[in-house]
Amino acid sequence: MFTYIENGSITSVKGIKAAGIHAGLKRKRKDLALIVSEQPCSVAGTFTLNKVQAAPLLVSKKVIAKGGKVKAILVNSGNANACTGERGYNDALKSQKYCAKKLGVEQDEVIISSTGVIGEYMPMHILKNGIESIVDQVTDDGGIKAAKAILTTDLVEKAFAVNVKLSSGEVTIGGIAKGSGMIMPNMATMLAFIATDADIEKDLLKKILTKTVNNSFNKISVDGDTSTNDMVVLITNGVSKVKVEDGSEDEKLFTEALQAISIDMAKAITKDGEGASKLITIEVKNGRTESDVDTIAQTIANSPLVKTAVYGSDANWGRIISAAGRSGVDFDPAKVEIKFDDMTILAPNYCHEYDEEEATAVLSKKEITISINLNDGDASTTWWTCDFTEKYIEINASYRS
Amino acid sequence: MFTYIENGSITSVKGIKAAGIHAGLKRKRKDLALIVSEQPCSVAGTFTLNKVQAAPLLVSKKVIAKGGKVKAILVNSGNANACTGERGYNDALKSQKYCAKKLGVEQDEVIISSTGVIGEYMPMHILKNGIESIVDQVTDDGGIKAAKAILTTDLVEKAFAVNVKLSSGEVTIGGIAKGSGMIMPNMATMLAFIATDADIEKDLLKKILTKTVNNSFNKISVDGDTSTNDMVVLITNGVSKVKVEDGSEDEKLFTEALQAISIDMAKAITKDGEGASKLITIEVKNGRTESDVDTIAQTIANSPLVKTAVYGSDANWGRIISAAGRSGVDFDPAKVEIKFDDMTILAPNYCHEYDEEEATAVLSKKEITISINLNDGDASTTWWTCDFTEKYIEINASYRS
Repeated sequence: MFTYIENGSITSVKGIKAAGIHAGLKRKRKDLALIVSEQPCSVAGTFTLNKVQAAPLLVSKKVIAKGGKVKAILVNSGNANACTGERGYNDALKSQKYCAKKLGVEQDEVIISSTGVIGEYMPMHILKNGIESIVDQVTDDGGIKAAKAILTTDLVEKAFAVNVKLSSGEVTIGGIAKGSGMIMPNMATMLAFIATDADIEKDLLKKILTKTVNNSFNKISVDGDTSTNDMVVLITNGVSKVKVEDGSEDEKLFTEALQAISIDMAKAITKDGEGASKLITIEVKNGRTESDVDTIAQTIANSPLVKTAVYGSDANWGRIISAAGRSGVDFDPAKVEIKFDDMTILAPNYCHEYDEEEATAVLSKKEITISINLNDGDASTTWWTCDFTEKYIEINASYRS
Repeated sequence: MFTYIENGSITSVKGIKAAGIHAGLKRKRKDLALIVSEQPCSVAGTFTLNKVQAAPLLVSKKVIAKGGKVKAILVNSGNANACTGERGYNDALKSQKYCAKKLGVEQDEVIISSTGVIGEYMPMHILKNGIESIVDQVTDDGGIKAAKAILTTDLVEKAFAVNVKLSSGEVTIGGIAKGSGMIMPNMATMLAFIATDADIEKDLLKKILTKTVNNSFNKISVDGDTSTNDMVVLITNGVSKVKVEDGSEDEKLFTEALQAISIDMAKAITKDGEGASKLITIEVKNGRTESDVDTIAQTIANSPLVKTAVYGSDANWGRIISAAGRSGVDFDPAKVEIKFDDMTILAPNYCHEYDEEEATAVLSKKEITISINLNDGDASTTWWTCDFTEKYIEINASYRS
């Protein structure tokens, strides 16, 4: 059982402080966030699969691979420090080192992360001044400020926290995230930073995070493009003294709660996708294998034709079944059922005796669920995507001009 | 050596007649095409890989699989006869049978093809009346009319023909095609019908067609969606008496010419993609394998971010390298060079010392070549795509409403 904390964020977790400030990397908005834990934290992370990887991501991957504890996460927006070669890599190391020095911790205890324009060198004097200033500003309730400071083209901050009752006591999980599903240099990348005070050993933490990310952040799509800087980091300081053991009922409860707020963050990212006007939940049910249903869901989630049809509130089931058809998955199209929310649009054998006006009414809502029942097995999945609007084109065609 | 025929089309080929009429499947525009050969033709075809396949496509695949000769190709627009189950399949057989009867040929000598709205039954009385009327209207110069009759959301007809000098004489190749790269029920599908009077045995014809399609129609993208009805059919009546033998120099010359007009048709389809304002040629050079360069080119060609950047004339090389990075291909990003036409935008080690205004000027042209040099091998490929505009969203969000 878990319960949401009102206005919760990463600093809802005991022992976690944060700040978000304007350092000067962006013109006016906050652009530097710092998350600090007094207690050393176990850490797990998942990173972009893009072959092009930003310098701070490479630095942070090494920190996590070493398996030591961490005490801080430094995140800037406004500059991705990606495609910057050796100089960029050295800049990333310098900012990590400088932040560690100011905090009085080891260099390897600092995770760093960047999002923003790529292909431009980090203005190090601005970043250094920012670091100098931010270390004294972390507070017990600075999570929302930090959530604002990591945004780029996002319109709203994404922050959630829950209390989870486990067998030996209560723990808290809190996180902040940013979208909006797109890549640089439009200053958009998927980042999420999550903390908990549960006592979890690092291998188990990695296992729990991987499973959670696969069921949340890895099942969203704004435009099918991935970033050079995407990362999800989970830290735990163990201050609750509530231990979660591998294979226990507590592990299950903890994972459920972590997954819930991860899905909340993932959905918030999707809903705030560039130009998006609707959040679309895509359920693919009763396929032969998990891989099959995920492939079909992903293909539908990325289809410009499906996304424009939903934008236009057009009950265009042909585009949905055809996207499934080109996914490469083997299934019998004649068995497929499609629903919009609870309304059946397509029944097996291509029957589609629905009321067009009623379908348009369902699709006119701001949140819609499209269910595709393959009637061919027992594997199911849920993905989230957004509609595709003129605004997306406008934002992306005009950004740098 | 080959030379283009002015206003050429499929009827530029000796012995091939065609017509295009308004049967009533569409409101006003032509919607029924018939291509007829007095001499029986060897035939080869390639078909959509979409799991959802339209009834006429299934019927025509069987005709070609049987390996016999054909004498006619009947194509309607306005209704795709896809997702119509058994009734749709029987309708397809009936239209094939009716056309054969009217022409006085065997049922298996008629290829049929449809494009248009899916999920609706074919209005057979309209189609039958159309067939009745069109068989008497085929002429030696009806190719352009046929090209018009197969269009859906396309704006212009696509027709090309060439004369090819071979060792023992001259042959002609002519074709018609339609786009616009999108799927139903927006009435859009990729179709191409090509004829030649060269004398080519059917196994060689199949080999030549497969190779050609892989280098032309299979390397274009409008929105990454494929149709239930896509097909390319090549027929040859052999009336030139000029034989093309497997492995000969003539085979090479013939294939070159066929590939040239296939690329012309493919480019014309891309240029006429829904909402497109620019034709983008994507060259990926010096990769490790053919599969690598094709995967990278396809990922770039389908990236909404790359396509919107070109629309906005924004020299956004970061989106290009990042699309390559998420393609799943292993390469070294630091070695990559990117050019827009002849202008270097990115040199190895992420050097990008170009003039932004000059780059915008290049990107403002109606036809642009983006070259990505991986400097990592000797495999190369060329793809074609179009930009992504508000018009695409408008067309696809509002079509059925």
